[in-house]
Amino acid sequence: MSISSSNSSAVVDQLVENGVKSTALLDAVNDEYGGVIIEMKEPMDSEVFRSSLRASLSQWRKEGKRGLWIKLPIEHANLVEPAVKEGFWYHHAEPKYLMLVHWLPETVNILPANATHRVGIGAFVINDEREVLVVQENAGKFKGTGVWKLPTGVVEQGEDICLGAIREVKEETGIDTEFVEVLLFRQTHKSFFEKSDLLFVCMLRPLSFDIQKQELEIADAKWMPIEEFTAQPFWQREGLPKHIVEICLAKIDEGYAGFAPIPTTTAFSNNSSYMYLNSQFLNQPSSSRI
Amino acid sequence: MSISSSNSSAVVDQLVENGVKSTALLDAVNDEYGGVIIEMKEPMDSEVFRSSLRASLSQWRKEGKRGLWIKLPIEHANLVEPAVKEGFWYHHAEPKYLMLVHWLPETVNILPANATHRVGIGAFVINDEREVLVVQENAGKFKGTGVWKLPTGVVEQGEDICLGAIREVKEETGIDTEFVEVLLFRQTHKSFFEKSDLLFVCMLRPLSFDIQKQELEIADAKWMPIEEFTAQPFWQREGLPKHIVEICLAKIDEGYAGFAPIPTTTAFSNNSSYMYLNSQFLNQPSSSRI
Repeated sequence: MSISSSNSSAVVDQLVENGVKSTALLDAVNDEYGGVIIEMKEPMDSEVFRSSLRASLSQWRKEGKRGLWIKLPIEHANLVEPAVKEGFWYHHAEPKYLMLVHWLPETVNILPANATHRVGIGAFVINDEREVLVVQENAGKFKGTGVWKLPTGVVEQGEDICLGAIREVKEETGIDTEFVEVLLFRQTHKSFFEKSDLLFVCMLRPLSFDIQKQELEIADAKWMPIEEFTAQPFWQREGLPKHIVEICLAKIDEGYAGFAPIPTTTAFSNNSSYMYLNSQFLNQPSSSRI
Repeated sequence: MSISSSNSSAVVDQLVENGVKSTALLDAVNDEYGGVIIEMKEPMDSEVFRSSLRASLSQWRKEGKRGLWIKLPIEHANLVEPAVKEGFWYHHAEPKYLMLVHWLPETVNILPANATHRVGIGAFVINDEREVLVVQENAGKFKGTGVWKLPTGVVEQGEDICLGAIREVKEETGIDTEFVEVLLFRQTHKSFFEKSDLLFVCMLRPLSFDIQKQELEIADAKWMPIEEFTAQPFWQREGLPKHIVEICLAKIDEGYAGFAPIPTTTAFSNNSSYMYLNSQFLNQPSSSRI
C-alpha cells in the first residue's frame, strides 16, 4: 500500500467555547484507496489519544473515508487499548510496530490480506566432480540424526528468492555460487502457528570450493559424492526427500528443466522484480523474444 | 510451532508471609524448543497481569527457558502495554489476536521469522475454441481502464495454490475448472507495507462454460478469442504483461512445460501437501518413479 499524496489533514483545534479543553484531530495521510494512514510517531497520553481518535473518526465518517490504518510503534503500546476500544482491530505486526485497521463503510471490507507465507530455500550445489555441498546442523529437526542435508534457510523480508539462496549457501558454508534455477517448490500449512511455508528447492553452481562453515548453526559441512548423499536412508524416504533426490538427479543426468529467474518490471510501475519460468523455453532459439 | 506437551506449569500461589498479597504465575505450556506459550484466555487486570508476568519471568529464567510467547486475544488489549514494559515485543498479529515474544538467553534469538509473503494467483483458462476466460473489475488498478484481464485473487490462509486458483475462477466467473500447472511465478517486494507478493500464473482447464459473474468485484466476464485478448495494448507492454502472454501462447502452441502439483508428505510428519515440478518430467515414461 503506497501513499498517494502528502496532503495530511490539517490539525484542527476544536476549542470548546466556554472552556480550556481542546481536541486535536490526529495527523493523517490519505491513501490511494479512499482511506487514511495515521502513524503515531510521538508519545501521547492514552486518554488524549482516545479523544483525538474519536473526534477524527467523526470527521473521517463525514468525509466518507473507508479503510483507516494506525501504525503504532512499540514505544506507544499504551495506545493499543484505546484504538481497540474505538473499533480498530489488528492487521499485522512486526517486532517494532503494530498496524491496526478499521473499515468505516457499511459494505464488506476490501482491505488487503495479511502476509500468510514464509519463504524458504533448499540449495542443491554440485561441483564438476559430482560432489554435493552438504551440512549437518546444530539445531532443528535434523540435529543429532547424522543426516547430511542440503543447506536451507529462510528468505528475508524484501529479499529475492534467487539472492536468498546464494546468501544462505555463503553464510552456512562460505561457498560462492551463482543461481541456476528453481527445481521444484512445495507448499505446507500450519508450519508455524497458522502460517504456511513455501520451500523452493534450487540448484546453484559453485564458484568457489573451500568450505568455511558457519559456527553457530552448522555442525559440519563438506562436499559429498552424490551417490553417497542419495544412499542415506533419510533421502530414500517416500515423500519429499525421495522426490528431491530424483529431481536433482534428473537435473544433472536427464536435462530436467526447472524455473530460471529473469528480471522483469511490474505492470503498473517500473519496480524491478524477478519472474521464474521454464529454463528450456528461455534457451530455445525461438525465444529470443524474452 | 506445535505444542509438545500439555504439562502446563502449575499455578503457584506465592503467599507473602505477613500479608494478603499473592502472585499467581501465569499458566504456560512448554513448547518443543525449550520455551513456553502463554495464551491469555480470560480477562485480567493489567496490574495483576504485570505482577504475575514478573513472577513468571523470574521462574522461567530459573528454569532456563528460551523463547516465551504470549498470545493475546484482542479483547485483552489492556495487557499489551504491561507485556511490552516487561520486555516483550511483537511477533505477528491476526485480526483477533496479537502474538508477543521474548527471548531469555543471552544468545542470539533463533525465533521463527514472521510471514513475509502474500500469495496470489492469476488464472489462464482457455477452452477448445481458443477462447480465454477474461474479466473486468469494479475496483483496483484495472478499474476503468477497459482492459480485459485474467481472473486473479489472493490465496487464503491455509489454502493450496492449485485449489485457490480453482476457487477464485469459480467465485469470479462461475466456471468450474481443473488445475493444469503453474506457468510462471513472480516475486515483488513492498507490495503492501513491507510485505512481498508471490504471484503464480496458472493454467486451468474449463469443465463448464456458462459464465455467472460475481456481482461485487467483477464488472464483466466473457470468453474472448485469444488473438483478441493478446492484441490489447496492455498485454503488449514490456515486462510482466508481455511475458505472460508469450508463455500462455507457448503453452498452447509449443508444449511449454510448467510446474504441475503432485501430492506429497512432509519429511517429518505425514501431513499432506503439494509439491510443484516440471510437468514433462512427470509425463515421461521413465518417471513412473513418482
